[in-house]
Amino acid sequence: MHTKAPPFPPAILQGRHPSPLLEAYFELHQLKHLFRQGWLRVGIPRDTCESVAEHSFFVALLCLFLADGYFPEADATKLVRMALLHDVGEARAGDITPHDGVSREEKLRREREAVEHLFSRLPRGPDYLALWEEYEQGTSFEARLVRQVDRLEMGLQATVYEHQGAGDLSQFFTSVHRALETPELKALLAELETLRPGD
Amino acid sequence: MHTKAPPFPPAILQGRHPSPLLEAYFELHQLKHLFRQGWLRVGIPRDTCESVAEHSFFVALLCLFLADGYFPEADATKLVRMALLHDVGEARAGDITPHDGVSREEKLRREREAVEHLFSRLPRGPDYLALWEEYEQGTSFEARLVRQVDRLEMGLQATVYEHQGAGDLSQFFTSVHRALETPELKALLAELETLRPGD
Repeated sequence: MHTKAPPFPPAILQGRHPSPLLEAYFELHQLKHLFRQGWLRVGIPRDTCESVAEHSFFVALLCLFLADGYFPEADATKLVRMALLHDVGEARAGDITPHDGVSREEKLRREREAVEHLFSRLPRGPDYLALWEEYEQGTSFEARLVRQVDRLEMGLQATVYEHQGAGDLSQFFTSVHRALETPELKALLAELETLRPGD
Repeated sequence: MHTKAPPFPPAILQGRHPSPLLEAYFELHQLKHLFRQGWLRVGIPRDTCESVAEHSFFVALLCLFLADGYFPEADATKLVRMALLHDVGEARAGDITPHDGVSREEKLRREREAVEHLFSRLPRGPDYLALWEEYEQGTSFEARLVRQVDRLEMGLQATVYEHQGAGDLSQFFTSVHRALETPELKALLAELETLRPGD
């Protein structure tokens, strides 16, 4: 797993019993260090490679704008919370990609273990865990929307990388196409593709 | 202003009239490239220097956890929205620090111009602008809480940098101390300081 730096050393917290919030922060902080591994694999240099924290920020922001502007039927509050929490397991489990030889079941098992550990400390942990499960299982409109926005954001970032000279990143767009279900997001993707270099 | 890369070139969008959402995304994307300038000034290397997007993600996440666990009287939805939006003006205005020789009034003027431009495109733009003004003016409990969490997150990040060998970052803690008002956050800060190296 490629990171900017190792995690905040747990040894510092040992025997200290810090507040759950501080403990959670120092664990989650690794999301700033964790590169989105797929970009490195296609040759994006580390100095412009996105972190999981950066990606999550934009998924949350896009969910906010989309709920307000395109999907008035969605529960915007739930959508934004889910977006903020959807990748937090990666702080412990890492950003496992389809190229890592890890089965989908094993990836899910590791991420579930990570979020259970993380959320177990927080006062509203069981609510966060339920939101995370809902996202993973795609059992609500909001869950399926966050999953789609998660992919759309990857397509948006891929477009930026292509304009920065990364070459053809069509493989990422294939994955975005597969994920999108709603006509509104499909239309955004079609428009996005006209903004790719060479189009 | 130190960045990882120049903004997504507006020339690509010229004459295309893309959806407001795509236009807003490409402008906001610069928050992934924009270093938090204060860290570079004290010698944090670019390869571990936080971006504004990373900072904003953690301010939003902390606001969520704090609203749920410590401040049940706060409007959690408003708090999280405000946290997500509080720094978006920096995508255009940059991260102006007290060391840049820009007056507080001029900084605010540039940031207001930036958010007005940005939000003017979005369906709920006037609501976002009102939230941003509320934050800037500190006219609600939520606004004052986001401002405090904004500083607290800086103290948390400073603690990580100190453990990574950045030396004494007390100057940042002075600023956090000045900003905190609520007993709950002051207690968290006092505890955080016991986790700094050498304490």
